[in-house]
Amino acid sequence: MLQIHATLSSCIIPRLYNAPILRSQPAFPNNTGKRLINSNSKTPIRTISSSSPFKIALCQLSVSANKERNIAHARKVIEEAAEKGARLVLLPEIWNSPYSNDSFPVYAEDIDAGGNESPSTAMLAELAQSLQITVVGGSIPERSGDKLYNTCCVFDTDGKLKAKHRKIHLFNIDIPGQMTFKESKTLTAGETPIIVDTDVGRIGIGICYDIRFQELAAIYAARGAHLLCYPGAFNMTTGPLHWELLQRARAADCQVLSSLFFLSKVA
Amino acid sequence: MLQIHATLSSCIIPRLYNAPILRSQPAFPNNTGKRLINSNSKTPIRTISSSSPFKIALCQLSVSANKERNIAHARKVIEEAAEKGARLVLLPEIWNSPYSNDSFPVYAEDIDAGGNESPSTAMLAELAQSLQITVVGGSIPERSGDKLYNTCCVFDTDGKLKAKHRKIHLFNIDIPGQMTFKESKTLTAGETPIIVDTDVGRIGIGICYDIRFQELAAIYAARGAHLLCYPGAFNMTTGPLHWELLQRARAADCQVLSSLFFLSKVA
Repeated sequence: MLQIHATLSSCIIPRLYNAPILRSQPAFPNNTGKRLINSNSKTPIRTISSSSPFKIALCQLSVSANKERNIAHARKVIEEAAEKGARLVLLPEIWNSPYSNDSFPVYAEDIDAGGNESPSTAMLAELAQSLQITVVGGSIPERSGDKLYNTCCVFDTDGKLKAKHRKIHLFNIDIPGQMTFKESKTLTAGETPIIVDTDVGRIGIGICYDIRFQELAAIYAARGAHLLCYPGAFNMTTGPLHWELLQRARAADCQVLSSLFFLSKVA
Repeated sequence: MLQIHATLSSCIIPRLYNAPILRSQPAFPNNTGKRLINSNSKTPIRTISSSSPFKIALCQLSVSANKERNIAHARKVIEEAAEKGARLVLLPEIWNSPYSNDSFPVYAEDIDAGGNESPSTAMLAELAQSLQITVVGGSIPERSGDKLYNTCCVFDTDGKLKAKHRKIHLFNIDIPGQMTFKESKTLTAGETPIIVDTDVGRIGIGICYDIRFQELAAIYAARGAHLLCYPGAFNMTTGPLHWELLQRARAADCQVLSSLFFLSKVA
């Protein structure tokens, strides 16, 4: 669709640009039921007529060094959210473990094995079914063979694991005197964007620094996502410069219903 | 690069995602001369060692119904900017004409014919050479055959027309009781992104609503733009919700030196 010419002048001209036509239309209509601002696109507007309002709970959790306590605390918070009517419940990044390379191997769970091998996700599966909610389960350190990932699990109201997103963009930072942290020291990067159909809509998943990359959100938008969810545990050195800007930009650029972003509170 | 799988579950998985490696690195180094935050990309960082600070003038102009007066006013403002040391001077969108579909055909000029057929751009060419500045000439209505475009001309210090960008995304708005305007009633949309090498760097050009489309900025960033320039004349109904967010998002996402955006003041 895109051909590149180098002309005689110093002007570089990619021809046949037509992003708006290539782009998917918003999955949801806006409140007025019509688009207010039209591009030149001839593509018909796709809508979901059955969409109806529902409550979303963004759970911020205090994380301790005690994994059982973290799981019990998350259980309590999810139950409270469901009691207040939430149909979609979101947890933060690495909610069952301290956020350190020393901790990741110790707190990691074998999600695919499940059961006793993964008490954190077993709790999420149980609550999703018993409370009839959709859970975007933040993330936990995942052990798979000899590798560790930062992994988000999505459970739907049948209690089944619907999708597993492994953080694609690991965050390595080195600002001398302020902050040094290399996730890639212990973690392996995921390679696969995950978009999942749930009872509350089609959700594109990213984890924290994944939001920094517009390409990932654009892929989700093009696949008809209604909602982008980015569980996060942003740092306070570079975080404040980014989190509001990036979530607003993803929502506006992708015309998704909302771009959610939530932080874990490290105790 | 991207293959799509539909798995047994409701999860849609595009495989082999690797946006950071596909993406160009920033054209300029940051102030410290090194990148603070690294992705997993193995691509070497491209830098321009000869980059040095220079002054940029963003000229906001009051536009009247008198074209000669508009040209004389723009001339005066550009001369003042150059006198104050600006090496790059930017004008707003449609600075030689009132912003209306009635006016566009009347004020339009044949830019390719030049000379007396295009007094607005002849003035820009003359000043670029005599003042030894680079001019991103906002935009004027352009007549080409039986079509009208909203066109930005770029002149370099040799006074030559280096690039001509025709607004790609025409702005059609209809908010009953607030604002109705259809640029497409008189104007034809451009089809070609324009990125141009000038004495002050490689510049990607968009006009006003073009900034709404991240794909255009991403193309410029991938072609090594140092600077994105979006001459604008945003309206006050939808403008305030967009202009700061979008220019900050384009700058942060594309890691360009700056994303500039400037408004014309309609008298």
